Amino acid sequence: MRRAIYPGSFDPVTNGHLDVLERAARLYDEVFVAIAHNEAKNGLFSVEERAALLKETVRGLPNVRVTQFDGLLVDYARSLDVCVIIRGLRAISDFEFEFQMALMNRKLDGGVETTFLMPKEEYTYLSSRLVKEIAKLGGDISAFVPDAIARALKEKFA
Amino acid sequence: MRRAIYPGSFDPVTNGHLDVLERAARLYDEVFVAIAHNEAKNGLFSVEERAALLKETVRGLPNVRVTQFDGLLVDYARSLDVCVIIRGLRAISDFEFEFQMALMNRKLDGGVETTFLMPKEEYTYLSSRLVKEIAKLGGDISAFVPDAIARALKEKFA
Amino acid sequence: MRRAIYPGSFDPVTNGHLDVLERAARLYDEVFVAIAHNEAKNGLFSVEERAALLKETVRGLPNVRVTQFDGLLVDYARSLDVCVIIRGLRAISDFEFEFQMALMNRKLDGGVETTFLMPKEEYTYLSSRLVKEIAKLGGDISAFVPDAIARALKEKFA
Amino acid sequence: MRRAIYPGSFDPVTNGHLDVLERAARLYDEVFVAIAHNEAKNGLFSVEERAALLKETVRGLPNVRVTQFDGLLVDYARSLDVCVIIRGLRAISDFEFEFQMALMNRKLDGGVETTFLMPKEEYTYLSSRLVKEIAKLGGDISAFVPDAIARALKEKFA
Amino acid sequence: MRRAIYPGSFDPVTNGHLDVLERAARLYDEVFVAIAHNEAKNGLFSVEERAALLKETVRGLPNVRVTQFDGLLVDYARSLDVCVIIRGLRAISDFEFEFQMALMNRKLDGGVETTFLMPKEEYTYLSSRLVKEIAKLGGDISAFVPDAIARALKEKFA
Amino acid sequence: MRRAIYPGSFDPVTNGHLDVLERAARLYDEVFVAIAHNEAKNGLFSVEERAALLKETVRGLPNVRVTQFDGLLVDYARSLDVCVIIRGLRAISDFEFEFQMALMNRKLDGGVETTFLMPKEEYTYLSSRLVKEIAKLGGDISAFVPDAIARALKEKFA
Repeated sequence: MRRAIYPGSFDPVTNGHLDVLERAARLYDEVFVAIAHNEAKNGLFSVEERAALLKETVRGLPNVRVTQFDGLLVDYARSLDVCVIIRGLRAISDFEFEFQMALMNRKLDGGVETTFLMPKEEYTYLSSRLVKEIAKLGGDISAFVPDAIARALKEKFA
Repeated sequence: MRRAIYPGSFDPVTNGHLDVLERAARLYDEVFVAIAHNEAKNGLFSVEERAALLKETVRGLPNVRVTQFDGLLVDYARSLDVCVIIRGLRAISDFEFEFQMALMNRKLDGGVETTFLMPKEEYTYLSSRLVKEIAKLGGDISAFVPDAIARALKEKFA
Repeated sequence: MRRAIYPGSFDPVTNGHLDVLERAARLYDEVFVAIAHNEAKNGLFSVEERAALLKETVRGLPNVRVTQFDGLLVDYARSLDVCVIIRGLRAISDFEFEFQMALMNRKLDGGVETTFLMPKEEYTYLSSRLVKEIAKLGGDISAFVPDAIARALKEKFA
Repeated sequence: MRRAIYPGSFDPVTNGHLDVLERAARLYDEVFVAIAHNEAKNGLFSVEERAALLKETVRGLPNVRVTQFDGLLVDYARSLDVCVIIRGLRAISDFEFEFQMALMNRKLDGGVETTFLMPKEEYTYLSSRLVKEIAKLGGDISAFVPDAIARALKEKFA
Repeated sequence: MRRAIYPGSFDPVTNGHLDVLERAARLYDEVFVAIAHNEAKNGLFSVEERAALLKETVRGLPNVRVTQFDGLLVDYARSLDVCVIIRGLRAISDFEFEFQMALMNRKLDGGVETTFLMPKEEYTYLSSRLVKEIAKLGGDISAFVPDAIARALKEKFA
Repeated sequence: MRRAIYPGSFDPVTNGHLDVLERAARLYDEVFVAIAHNEAKNGLFSVEERAALLKETVRGLPNVRVTQFDGLLVDYARSLDVCVIIRGLRAISDFEFEFQMALMNRKLDGGVETTFLMPKEEYTYLSSRLVKEIAKLGGDISAFVPDAIARALKEKFA
């Protein structure tokens, strides 16, 4: 049984995240979507809200579990018996940051491999930050996030 | 009649912005330089000060208007009957950010096109942030901004 | 009247080129698609074949003319009374090359401005070279090029 | 059973390729290293030589098979019942090229996913081309390729 | 006598900084490691702590001096009779930022040249920020910083 | 006494090369401009012509010597008792290639350091290849190369 972890801040989850998650769910037996507490400060949504929104979003993916963690990602991955960290790779700036994280994680624990998946090209330039900015200005974000997230963003900024 | 909009925070306007603006003014019948309110928070200059400095800077360009806006850029562009968003393209980091914004704006309103202009290469690495930092440390910024801006920066940091 | 030129080798034209061309045709009164002779050597299609395929492709765009040129682009642009060079901007490698060409052209003739347009994100990674390679291996390229081009490629590799 | 394919020209295989292969062999039940014929022209080693060198190199990896293919990668992957294409991701120029190929392959067959693995950072800037160049000039390439390859390169350039 | 300056925030110094410093110490007669006050705000370590940690770190490099400065780097460099600014060049994002700073510094004082050195590839993706983040989460950072720094980080986060 | 080497193909030398060379000549006691034979094949100018043009170009720099070499750069550097390889760093594509070469050279001989200098920003996008292309098409290249080179290019393409 091969388990993977897909870590992030998910504040909130976007269609880009969901796309990566669906691909991961086809490649691995079990996938943990894991909200990182240390990246969660000063977010728009609380960790609990993010978890609830993620759960609603991944309802159709039976082998995906929503979790959260404190501390180092590699330690948490070990505790779940996970061998693979999943990351979506979008653009140049991503690339640098993701490589840095992946090399650090490898240094910290050589037994957990990072693999990169590529979201649909229409999600290449999508980010939680940008979606929140547009929602705040009253723009229509229904093309960028699942319905539940669009509703939650509307409520936040009402 | 073809109208264009050149949005930004202009905190303050630099010679790089002015160079892009002069190019745009040659290509379009009317160009709106538009200060974005939502990017204007926590700036060095207030939106009113930026507008005044911009007006003084573009005095020699008769088809350029200085404006400001709240909300989404594409909505404001529509309200002005503008068909083109102008952006200066300087370096790699710009490129990623600019593409992201341009694709988002296209998703939000497919009828407004983003076009990119290239400033003079000597302005390639110029930014408002860096100019402010140098001015704050007492450096000579007269090569990077119009005279009026240099004077205003000197006063701010006096 | 504002005229633009969209230069390239077009060996053959792809949906990415066509997308840029449609955007340019909305922004300018007249657009010349210009096949560069000096880049045309050793191509799959002759300049005449490319011109014929381009003409069939742009039939629905009344203000687009298909042309070809020898020598420097800026000299040809001058001879057509064109004020703007149009380039599509896709990805990082493009960016560098395009900047280099645009700065060179500006040095050669400061009166002709280069502006960049962004094709649909689904064409971001499309290139004539890749389309030819796939066609040669018998792959289905109908999503990447206009119908006439798909037929021409099939014949070439039959 | 999850099968993966690691395609390339392998002219010749380097320590960077081997590093990626070892990682893939831990993540998948069976991994095919597949020499692409269409990229094999004008190489230093013939496809048969490359296959022999690869076989010697992967001797310690029981779930790795050395193969070769004509035509489209996605068709060959299908024929082997492979769900994942493995690619090593080294540097910026790689990134662009790899994304282009991955998106093309996805368009050609949405059922085969491309995943990226990161070689050790000391192999980040290693390439077959550079190794051959150094070997040709009489440099010591023993840090860059397996022993069998170093011997084969020495013979080629003797 | 050729003097060089290696400026930064060093909050704290990492093995990557030390690697660059050792290379600079071989190329120049005297090297000043200079902590920039204006980048020092809101750091984890005070400027005095950083200076003390740097001094302990460079003990084995007799021609290296630890200093600190207010104001513009080029002015400080002039006051030390330094002809060269040393910068480590790691990755793409560095590259843009470093070029911007180097061009600005050249504009401010054409007599001080910036030269770039490349740290060992295993330090390519190392940063003070990331080291602090890992230390804060209780991870082992002994591979990334000198021993004295590892101890200091442990104390800070105890 | 500190000696540096500035290797390249110089087919032909441009103002960008000259700018880097002038900076290097200020930083080191002796600088060798070295034409690499293995990159010299299929050039426009023969190695002898390039050497003659370089000699004319560097006449005003008394501590610069024009040389040429076969084989590995690091071996040649050793034979000249050179401790530093000089490279100009212009743009992103340069950056990748230069890093690759520098890391390889360090692997081949750890005692020779590569340092990077930044040419004037107006030469950022200048290349021998582009200059030759423009000269071939009859364009004015006097802003890009020294006078002697401009004359030589005119003769070649007459």
